[in-house]
Amino acid sequence: MSRRYLNLTPLAEALAAMRQAFPPPGHAETVPLHLSVGRVTAEPLYAEYSIPGADIARFDGYAVKSGDTLGAQDQRPLPLLASARINTGEVLPVSFDAVVMIEDTWDEGGIPWVRKSAASWQHVRHAGEDIRAGELVLPKGHQIRPFDLGALATYGITQLAVRSVRIGIVPTGSELVPLGVAPAPGQTIETNTLMAEAYLSRMGATCRRYGIVPDDPDLIRNAVQTAVAENDLVILSAGSSAGTRDFSRDVVGALGEIIFHGIAVRPGKPVLLANVGGKPVLGMPGYPVAAQTALREVAGNLLAWWGLSPLPGGEMDVRLSRRLASDLGFDEFVPVSVGRVSGTCWATPHPRGGGIQMAVVRANGYLHIPAAREGIEAGEEVHVRLTVPPPEIARTVVCVGQRDPALAELRNRLSETGYLLHCCNASTMGAVLAVRANTCHAASISLPETETAWDNQVLRYLPDVDLLRVQVARTELGIVSAGPLDAGSLASLRFVNRPKGTAARIFLDAWLDRQGIDAGRIAGYEQEVRTAGAVAAAVGSGFADAGVCPAPMAREAGLRFTLLGYESCELLIRKELAADDGVASLVRAARSPEFRAFLRSAGRDRTDTDPAGGTSRDALPA
Amino acid sequence: MSRRYLNLTPLAEALAAMRQAFPPPGHAETVPLHLSVGRVTAEPLYAEYSIPGADIARFDGYAVKSGDTLGAQDQRPLPLLASARINTGEVLPVSFDAVVMIEDTWDEGGIPWVRKSAASWQHVRHAGEDIRAGELVLPKGHQIRPFDLGALATYGITQLAVRSVRIGIVPTGSELVPLGVAPAPGQTIETNTLMAEAYLSRMGATCRRYGIVPDDPDLIRNAVQTAVAENDLVILSAGSSAGTRDFSRDVVGALGEIIFHGIAVRPGKPVLLANVGGKPVLGMPGYPVAAQTALREVAGNLLAWWGLSPLPGGEMDVRLSRRLASDLGFDEFVPVSVGRVSGTCWATPHPRGGGIQMAVVRANGYLHIPAAREGIEAGEEVHVRLTVPPPEIARTVVCVGQRDPALAELRNRLSETGYLLHCCNASTMGAVLAVRANTCHAASISLPETETAWDNQVLRYLPDVDLLRVQVARTELGIVSAGPLDAGSLASLRFVNRPKGTAARIFLDAWLDRQGIDAGRIAGYEQEVRTAGAVAAAVGSGFADAGVCPAPMAREAGLRFTLLGYESCELLIRKELAADDGVASLVRAARSPEFRAFLRSAGRDRTDTDPAGGTSRDALPA
Repeated sequence: MSRRYLNLTPLAEALAAMRQAFPPPGHAETVPLHLSVGRVTAEPLYAEYSIPGADIARFDGYAVKSGDTLGAQDQRPLPLLASARINTGEVLPVSFDAVVMIEDTWDEGGIPWVRKSAASWQHVRHAGEDIRAGELVLPKGHQIRPFDLGALATYGITQLAVRSVRIGIVPTGSELVPLGVAPAPGQTIETNTLMAEAYLSRMGATCRRYGIVPDDPDLIRNAVQTAVAENDLVILSAGSSAGTRDFSRDVVGALGEIIFHGIAVRPGKPVLLANVGGKPVLGMPGYPVAAQTALREVAGNLLAWWGLSPLPGGEMDVRLSRRLASDLGFDEFVPVSVGRVSGTCWATPHPRGGGIQMAVVRANGYLHIPAAREGIEAGEEVHVRLTVPPPEIARTVVCVGQRDPALAELRNRLSETGYLLHCCNASTMGAVLAVRANTCHAASISLPETETAWDNQVLRYLPDVDLLRVQVARTELGIVSAGPLDAGSLASLRFVNRPKGTAARIFLDAWLDRQGIDAGRIAGYEQEVRTAGAVAAAVGSGFADAGVCPAPMAREAGLRFTLLGYESCELLIRKELAADDGVASLVRAARSPEFRAFLRSAGRDRTDTDPAGGTSRDALPA
Repeated sequence: MSRRYLNLTPLAEALAAMRQAFPPPGHAETVPLHLSVGRVTAEPLYAEYSIPGADIARFDGYAVKSGDTLGAQDQRPLPLLASARINTGEVLPVSFDAVVMIEDTWDEGGIPWVRKSAASWQHVRHAGEDIRAGELVLPKGHQIRPFDLGALATYGITQLAVRSVRIGIVPTGSELVPLGVAPAPGQTIETNTLMAEAYLSRMGATCRRYGIVPDDPDLIRNAVQTAVAENDLVILSAGSSAGTRDFSRDVVGALGEIIFHGIAVRPGKPVLLANVGGKPVLGMPGYPVAAQTALREVAGNLLAWWGLSPLPGGEMDVRLSRRLASDLGFDEFVPVSVGRVSGTCWATPHPRGGGIQMAVVRANGYLHIPAAREGIEAGEEVHVRLTVPPPEIARTVVCVGQRDPALAELRNRLSETGYLLHCCNASTMGAVLAVRANTCHAASISLPETETAWDNQVLRYLPDVDLLRVQVARTELGIVSAGPLDAGSLASLRFVNRPKGTAARIFLDAWLDRQGIDAGRIAGYEQEVRTAGAVAAAVGSGFADAGVCPAPMAREAGLRFTLLGYESCELLIRKELAADDGVASLVRAARSPEFRAFLRSAGRDRTDTDPAGGTSRDALPA
């Protein structure tokens, strides 16, 4: 009943076993030159022609006999009597041995004159100067770049043999529906094979996606056999975990030999590799971020071993903004956002869950915590692989803290100025510490509008820092409930709560206090959920009768809402950073009439006038 | 008659004028998701669905009521009587509020048991944990990456609006023939527009190449007008220089307004930008490397300004291996090969000529010498943009020195081992200095096989360095001539010579000495050409009657050959580097039976047996 992985193979060991089992298949195909960018040469390429094909003029000017110019001086100009006008690239007529640049001549009586003698072969490009016919242009194993095309075409190469790897990608899962079909409850859009195709084809592989196979061992077996026959590598999407419907292991184990099942990698543990008829069959996890690890670190590694080229992409040595824990023995991959703050590049981690695709979408790179490390300390130098062009880092504005929906609109507005707002989740304390350590451009801090919250939770930790506070938005917080909230029924209500320190919890406690109710007597008071959305969902689904969440969520869910108070989201910025163009653009965007109008339309602007930021503290109702 | 550029605009000024003149056109088009990788979002994207859509199991296991597990301990296991088997991703049935991992249960009498109580909502992924319906996924201005596809598909996005820039590329030149046609003498294959399309389309632009337009102002005018009407940007390939057939300036000047003609950039000076009907028309130089500069630094800059994304590609801070001169006021771009030697990354420059495409093909990056610099000193830190994926640097073996054709075969052989041999041209002294400064993995040194050459030109400069010498190949050098070489005719022969210090010159001098001929009396003795190929070409075309070149070149040209002596090409390697895996692979490749067999078949192996390298000096005939 309990089907564990027999054991987790360390990543390095798994990759070594994979390379050992599957030598490069060595297939090639011929493609026309214009379709060859990104492909890898399977054979060396030699020039068909010498370039230039003959001695030609390097500049616009006159073809001359160098002897005729002998003795020309500033004081004694000479006419070029036996010369010929020649343009750059034109063949030098046989009787001449030099070119005089047009800039070094002047016209007198229809004849060009010079003030300087020309050396023999001056400004002449000799035949074969760039390359001689038959000379090597590229060895095998070279990935064709856009500018290589021009050279290859010039040298007479119109088609070339490139390495070919055919990959069959088989999605399995009875719960899957294809892209374009709206998923019913319990159904999932089949997306991992789309991602696999996009990623692997950019490494120069030829991918074929097969139709969705339901969770049926016979159907999976047939699909694997077909795909193995038609490809060099087969990727089975999902079904390699340990659920009751995970048949991949049994099916490929019966068809061939399991090389490993389960690797010590996070995310990406349930990776399966088997040898079926001499070809690798890779079982890819269903969690999308785990699937990405399998594609990048396992399939990508195999393709590199087989001679394809890794995707281009920058790498940077940066500092880690906060400690990252990691289990010894596990290779971990963590999405991060890299930004340059006061001249130092900092990487701030995003959540690591295998199901949190938004973490990868929000990130501009990822870092690898090797198996031998038990985590990385804050401030330590780490090597980050970027998933964006390196110049984007200079345009990145990193904001650490709570993710308010209004920040998304701010991100939109900021993108108009060319800057990219990266919001990295952190608690209020995490955000405050990031400001204190100067590892972010701004902190987004959401706190209840009470007299003491900012002082107690933020400002006391930053006594010596000159700060700029920029209001973003305020939120109505209150009790979401299915039925009416009357004193009589309160005792019987089942609650769902938020963690200590959240505005929702603070307002609920204050309200219970005002109502004279002992929190200990409220059913479900101890039951905490991590997101406000989960509160609305719990009440909406009948799991709880009441909880605290923002007004829009209650309204969206069609539930009742009883206002308790306001939560305010502000940006906290070191004043010394305000001169940074990206930070200044962020502040301008937050204060822009357009953004304020958006907030008003969402019912989330402040009713008092915007005091144009500054560290001034607005008096707020308790 | 003399048509100079009016003046050269500094690059920064030219780019500012361009951005000022051409605000982003702001066009968008809708593409299906699977074709969107590399494109840039024109509108923000919001999630269609919440993910997960409902509370689901995070792991394979059992759905339970957390209350039922209360009190379970190691000493007091409890049966999960009211539980349901659940797989990762399945919806939690309404009556349950937690998941117990299958690994934490065992089976007894068909019922799963646990030893630990489950917290409420344990191992449950709440609805909306990844994203909530309506939440921002990507702001506008984001370039879609392969892994973004999975997230977008999961969130229900099947198509999206992306920024669209249409580029019309017009090749001009009566000397041009299309790719696939063998060029007659004086003809050139039209390749720059192929390169432009490959480069610009990878930035996300939609390119259209028009047919070749001959050098005729009326035809060029028609072509420009058509292309301007159909595109957002027009690129005129060549014709922007100052030759008699360069009509671009006049044509576009008559149709619109010239913004600049000639920029202070090397290579790439003759760049032209005009405003025709509000649209930019860019005149691109004909020299391919100059055209690349115009594409990258001018067209690419405009596309970035218009909101497309620069190409991905690594950047590195490395040290420059030898001084690079540069004129004040000119932005220069220099192709380089970067390699890591003894832990330090060094960039070694390739030739900078606008016509030397092989320099760019051989390079793995380029560096920018800003206009304010008068060159860069050896050892200085420089910022290099890579044109290959960064991991290739670790696989790069840099060899500095003379380029012997046998090195090409060695490069092929080395590529089998995964290492990339980068040969950077240098004189013997340049190669010796690179070994002395430890900036290359190997030096390739070609010297005449005389008693003293190696001692005098190499070893005396490296007295304290432990060296490994690896033979590559030997070359027969001799006099190439159209007619017989007899004593009587010698006095009347016109010679073409090679520079001092070359083996060809040394052997010629020795031979003239043996013949008792005064070099000063030989016609053409002072006329030096830079390559051996130019010697054969000069004799072949009748410009000279004789010169010294390698035997294969004389034979290829169908000319007579009189042996004078041998030149030997060897690799010179610091012994401390021999442990480097790339260097060791190079040495093994050079000593491999396959490589020696190749040399024998080319008549270039040594007749004596290979002493398996080492610093031993072979006795050589004078």
